[in-house]
Amino acid sequence: MSESTAPARRARRPSGGAGSLLEIAVGEFNTRGYDATSMEDLSRAAGITKSSFYHHFSGKEALLRAALERAVDGLFGVLDSPSATTGSPTERLRTIVRDQVAVLMAELPYVTLLLRVRGNTETERWALERRRAFDAAIATLVRDAVDAGEVRSDVDPALAARLLSGVVNSIVEWYRPGRPGTATLPDDVAAAAFTGILPAR
Amino acid sequence: MSESTAPARRARRPSGGAGSLLEIAVGEFNTRGYDATSMEDLSRAAGITKSSFYHHFSGKEALLRAALERAVDGLFGVLDSPSATTGSPTERLRTIVRDQVAVLMAELPYVTLLLRVRGNTETERWALERRRAFDAAIATLVRDAVDAGEVRSDVDPALAARLLSGVVNSIVEWYRPGRPGTATLPDDVAAAAFTGILPAR
Repeated sequence: MSESTAPARRARRPSGGAGSLLEIAVGEFNTRGYDATSMEDLSRAAGITKSSFYHHFSGKEALLRAALERAVDGLFGVLDSPSATTGSPTERLRTIVRDQVAVLMAELPYVTLLLRVRGNTETERWALERRRAFDAAIATLVRDAVDAGEVRSDVDPALAARLLSGVVNSIVEWYRPGRPGTATLPDDVAAAAFTGILPAR
Repeated sequence: MSESTAPARRARRPSGGAGSLLEIAVGEFNTRGYDATSMEDLSRAAGITKSSFYHHFSGKEALLRAALERAVDGLFGVLDSPSATTGSPTERLRTIVRDQVAVLMAELPYVTLLLRVRGNTETERWALERRRAFDAAIATLVRDAVDAGEVRSDVDPALAARLLSGVVNSIVEWYRPGRPGTATLPDDVAAAAFTGILPAR
C-alpha cells in the first residue's frame, strides 16, 4: 500500500466491528449487485484483511442475511406496533404507511437491498417470502378497510395494496438522508395515499 | 445437440429477424442483467449462431440501444400526443398518466429494462438522460397544475411528481399481460393519483 492511498483507507476503516462491516457490505451490494460482489471486494472496501472479515461473518451470504434481517425486522416492527394493531382498518393503514416510510428513510440501504432481492440463494428466497408476508398483511388490511365501508367501493383491494406498496417503496429510488423537502415525508406519503398525489383544490 | 432438446430450441427460434432477436435479447437482459449477458448467451437463447446475430446487430450495446429507444419513443409519444398538449394542466396530466401506464403495459419488457438502467455505458447514460427529461416534463406540468390552483396548495410539486412517477413505474414489478383485474389499469392508476389509492367512501 502506497503512502498516498493510506489516509483514504484509514478513513474508511470501521471502528465498530461487525456493525460497520455490515454497513460497508450493504453499500457494496447495492452498488455492485450482490452476485457481483466478492469477499475480496468487501475486504478492500473495509480496509481490512479477508481473515479479519471472516472473524465477524462466516461469508458473503451471512452478511446478506444480517442485512436483510435488519430490513425485515424494521418492516415487521411497523406491523406489530400498538398503533398499527388498534383502531379502524383505515387508521391502522395510515399509521403503517407513515411508519413504513419512516423505516425506509432510517434503514435506507438495508431496505433498498431487500427490495432488489431476486431469490437466487436460500437467504434471498427467505427474504422474498418475508416481503410477500408483509405485503399480504397490508392487502388484508386494505380489504378490511373496503369491507368496512371506509374506502370507496369501486376500489379493488388487491390493486390498491399493490399501488400502495409501489408508492411507498418508490422513495428508495430518490430519497437520500437530509434531502431538502423530506422532513415530513412519512405524513406526505400517507396523505398522497389517502387523498391523492394531486388532490383537486 | 441431442434429439430431446431440439424441439425446445426450434420453438424459440425467431422467425421475424431483428425484431424477434431484440425481443429475445431484452428478455435475457431483464433476467440476467445487461452486464452479465454475453453475445454467447443471446445466440444460445435465440437458437442461432453468433455470426447470424451479428448480421442483425453490431453487438450487445446496439441491442441495448434499440431496446431502450423503443421504450423512450413510447414514453415521449405520450407527451407529444394531441390530448397531452391541450387542455388544463390537470387534464393533460390525467391523459399522460393513463397513456404512460398503457405504454408500460404494451411495452413491458422494454420499459422494465429502461427503469433498471444504471448508466455504465454511453447508451445507458443516454437513456438516463431521456428518463430525466421525461420526468422533468411531468414535474413542470405538476407545477403548472399547482400554480393554476387546480391542485391543493399544500402539495409540493417536486414531491408530487416523484410519487406520481413512483406509482406509475411500480406496475412493472407485478403487471403481466393478461393478468386478471388489469383491463382498466390505466384509468385505475389515474384515479388513484388524483383521488387517492384508498379514497374515503
